[in-house]
Amino acid sequence: MPDPATAPDAPPAAQPTTVHRLTLGDILREHRRSRPRTTAAVDGRVRLTYPQLDDRVDRLAAALPSAGAAAGSRVLYIGRTSVRFQEILLAAARIGAIAVPANWRQSTDELAFVLHDLSPAVVLWQPEPAADELASARAAANAPERWIRCDGASNAHPDADAYTAFLHSGRGAAPEPPVTGADPVIGLYTAAFDGRPNCALLSHDALLANSAALLRMRAVGTGFTFLNSGPLFHVGTLMFHLATFYAGGTNVYMPDFDPAEAARLIEAERVDHMFGFGPMLDAIVAANTDENGHPRHDLSSLRFTRHSPAWDAQITVGTDPWNASGMGGYGQTEVGGMLTYLALGMGGAGSAGRPSPMAQVRILGPGGEELPVGATGEIVARGPGIFSGYFNRPALNARKMADGWYHTGDLGRREDDGTITFIGPCARMIKSGNENIYPAEVERALTSHPDVAEAAVIGVPDPAWGQSVTAVVRRAPGSALTADQVIAHVRAAIASYKKPRRVVFVDEELPRAGHGHDYAALDAAYGGGGYPGEAGTG
Amino acid sequence: MPDPATAPDAPPAAQPTTVHRLTLGDILREHRRSRPRTTAAVDGRVRLTYPQLDDRVDRLAAALPSAGAAAGSRVLYIGRTSVRFQEILLAAARIGAIAVPANWRQSTDELAFVLHDLSPAVVLWQPEPAADELASARAAANAPERWIRCDGASNAHPDADAYTAFLHSGRGAAPEPPVTGADPVIGLYTAAFDGRPNCALLSHDALLANSAALLRMRAVGTGFTFLNSGPLFHVGTLMFHLATFYAGGTNVYMPDFDPAEAARLIEAERVDHMFGFGPMLDAIVAANTDENGHPRHDLSSLRFTRHSPAWDAQITVGTDPWNASGMGGYGQTEVGGMLTYLALGMGGAGSAGRPSPMAQVRILGPGGEELPVGATGEIVARGPGIFSGYFNRPALNARKMADGWYHTGDLGRREDDGTITFIGPCARMIKSGNENIYPAEVERALTSHPDVAEAAVIGVPDPAWGQSVTAVVRRAPGSALTADQVIAHVRAAIASYKKPRRVVFVDEELPRAGHGHDYAALDAAYGGGGYPGEAGTG
Repeated sequence: MPDPATAPDAPPAAQPTTVHRLTLGDILREHRRSRPRTTAAVDGRVRLTYPQLDDRVDRLAAALPSAGAAAGSRVLYIGRTSVRFQEILLAAARIGAIAVPANWRQSTDELAFVLHDLSPAVVLWQPEPAADELASARAAANAPERWIRCDGASNAHPDADAYTAFLHSGRGAAPEPPVTGADPVIGLYTAAFDGRPNCALLSHDALLANSAALLRMRAVGTGFTFLNSGPLFHVGTLMFHLATFYAGGTNVYMPDFDPAEAARLIEAERVDHMFGFGPMLDAIVAANTDENGHPRHDLSSLRFTRHSPAWDAQITVGTDPWNASGMGGYGQTEVGGMLTYLALGMGGAGSAGRPSPMAQVRILGPGGEELPVGATGEIVARGPGIFSGYFNRPALNARKMADGWYHTGDLGRREDDGTITFIGPCARMIKSGNENIYPAEVERALTSHPDVAEAAVIGVPDPAWGQSVTAVVRRAPGSALTADQVIAHVRAAIASYKKPRRVVFVDEELPRAGHGHDYAALDAAYGGGGYPGEAGTG
Repeated sequence: MPDPATAPDAPPAAQPTTVHRLTLGDILREHRRSRPRTTAAVDGRVRLTYPQLDDRVDRLAAALPSAGAAAGSRVLYIGRTSVRFQEILLAAARIGAIAVPANWRQSTDELAFVLHDLSPAVVLWQPEPAADELASARAAANAPERWIRCDGASNAHPDADAYTAFLHSGRGAAPEPPVTGADPVIGLYTAAFDGRPNCALLSHDALLANSAALLRMRAVGTGFTFLNSGPLFHVGTLMFHLATFYAGGTNVYMPDFDPAEAARLIEAERVDHMFGFGPMLDAIVAANTDENGHPRHDLSSLRFTRHSPAWDAQITVGTDPWNASGMGGYGQTEVGGMLTYLALGMGGAGSAGRPSPMAQVRILGPGGEELPVGATGEIVARGPGIFSGYFNRPALNARKMADGWYHTGDLGRREDDGTITFIGPCARMIKSGNENIYPAEVERALTSHPDVAEAAVIGVPDPAWGQSVTAVVRRAPGSALTADQVIAHVRAAIASYKKPRRVVFVDEELPRAGHGHDYAALDAAYGGGGYPGEAGTG
């Protein structure tokens, strides 16, 4: 459209985009000025103020080009949770490169795939605990990238290890290419479509949009201190790491989760928030309770969600929307963290709350049409927090971004009060009598019966209907539930055409693949097949 | 990058940026889905839910092209605070036009200038109270734009007035051009550079960035209700209007500020926040206190800043950062509201706090170099909240956006704790002995003396030094302050070269122009001149 500010006879205004720029690198430059005395990072014995962090990032950004990194290059980090990744990310941001924190728990084959897939310019790696796997992967990949070893815990002394020596080799100002907020700056490997993992790219703009939403939802403000108690290659920890940096707070790092050390750090650094869920929280309470039942360390600075009487007694139960809502919502790596927040729909009909202020959400049918309230379909999203696509996956990206909406691959439903319920992954759709049936929705109805311990749904070829629904059910111990009862229960809960035609009861646990059912194994065992995708009609 | 949508005869393909789009129009579409039962607007007898507002905006967006408005057109609103402006803004957003709320208190000449300067496609106007001025301005401008009259209070009935009839003339879907977040959507007339006011253009992105910052600072959340108690052509009210809309809250409108009606509305609508400052708050307390000293209406829903014992007793003193900090900070129309928040630097050395999370700030010297901590220079800014330039002012825009920073025209200082102090407008710089002296800084030092009631500083031509500093001072009643004492006070407060060489004491109030001193009159009366701008060396 015409830009009236630069009207017909006018020369273009001076760099109209530059005046609006706010990259991760810009934020660090601002923090060094606005927060010269604030501790940016605590990692073992290392403590860095924002000016010190900015100086180190400048050095690393000046060194990276000597190792072959340039704008658009991938810089791979294979190591524990550490300020080193923050330095690598911010240095990559400054030169327009993309920092990718990889899961060091992967097998040799998986690591070799990442090396081959990503063709990084530089690999920054820790020798423990995956030294053998890494060496084998490196040999298998036989790639020309520069490998730089990071030993043990972080250390600020120039002669501590190869990483530190490399950082200190950076001299003078790094070349600063015209980085824009739309440039990708982080890559995170995520779920395997097409049988292989994909590297989701997130731009400066997307990271800041999601951070700005978290600032509101978790009341992240001046002096906020976050304990990085989970892996930085998962968005759950990374999103709070970034929000804390964005707000000019303090990031505290643990290389691995250790409950006693977590309790010590919470007291020593007056930690406000951490990454944690049930078993982690129980472990902290156990480690932090002495033989007389008293806390060893004062955890009251931690404002966290309610969990158990013992946990609630040691911490401060948070009243901000995020903690008060039990950190509920729906999210994904590809949306940069949370797409919906339960805090925006507490007490509503939907289990996942309402969309982030940074997102639009629609529920689409298989033909791409928007579905009415109450109907289950694919969750799609649009907004500044959405990722930029997967690295080097043009066909997949075209599919996932069809019609200008990001297709999450997950099923949801808009309730009549506007809130959203997350149902489960789309997985494979069943087509029966021209109706679309999503296994996750039927499974949800099945497991809502108290006598059902576990259930999976497959489609079985049917000459009349195309496919028909088979439910594989493991009953609760001692239950005498019948197939008719199961079918009647589903029929009462969701549309009748979605009910199973056949129920198979099993005694053993259902086979699993990753976090979900192993549908291939279930199909093979119970006669599944004829899915629309297979028939080319999906 | 190439834009496939601009290829000749090509259908508009799905653009790669679309998946990141979040315009004002998109937000309204999302709210109708996420908040179908929430009241979006209350204006007299009119109450609109988000779906109702979206329907009305759709109609108005469909009608506007019939009146000649298209992408890039200006749509001028000359009227009171009303949901009508919200409808006009959102309809303009949907078709890519720019909504401009004008100050209806202006003179005939000023209104005629706006009409001529803006060349709007449509003027939506109220006959009261400026009917004569508007008629004269319209005659003087003799422009071809379509005028549509809005009578009295808002009314949802199609036959209520020309505006409502026009809105209801919209049929079917409005054409939706490919609006992007970078497109300007609001224009606000602001301070006169070069002797004329200028229309600052703010994009969707800028409005949302500033709204996101306010969401954090004022804890704007679900159910937030804002009383639009000031004019919508000023950013002070408009910024909260937009943040409330952005969060899916309720905007309540008063055509003009009336303290008794404000109190009634606060109780009736459970208002959380309003636009207000000292005298407005005093007037509400006075109007809301009955003859027995009891409040007539319950104002406890209002969480506002501390003001007076009577005010504090009737409302709830806010504990969010914005209210707790006394709503302090530094802002401008051109930065979309607040550039710095005192809430981010409470207890710090600087009076204006720290920059918004959406902004970078630098303090520059006259040569464009960044100044060290403690030095006074021009405040410049960069970030997604900054405006897009002035409408039809290419030369001014080039100057204000030089080197990719927005030059605020205001003086500030970075303190050693990173906080920022706002000094005052740059106004005219004095050059003495090759040193730069800003009158506002010297005036600040002068008025910090308890015996100085008022002070202005001018530069007087000096054969040896270029210029020398003259202070024009009005003493507090009964004071016998001497020139030497004045000079010694300034010397103790700021750099010695900035102290006045001459002090002129006056008995009358200093001449004023707008909100500041009338420097032209002061120069004429006390021998000012030789400013670097005049000599062509600035």
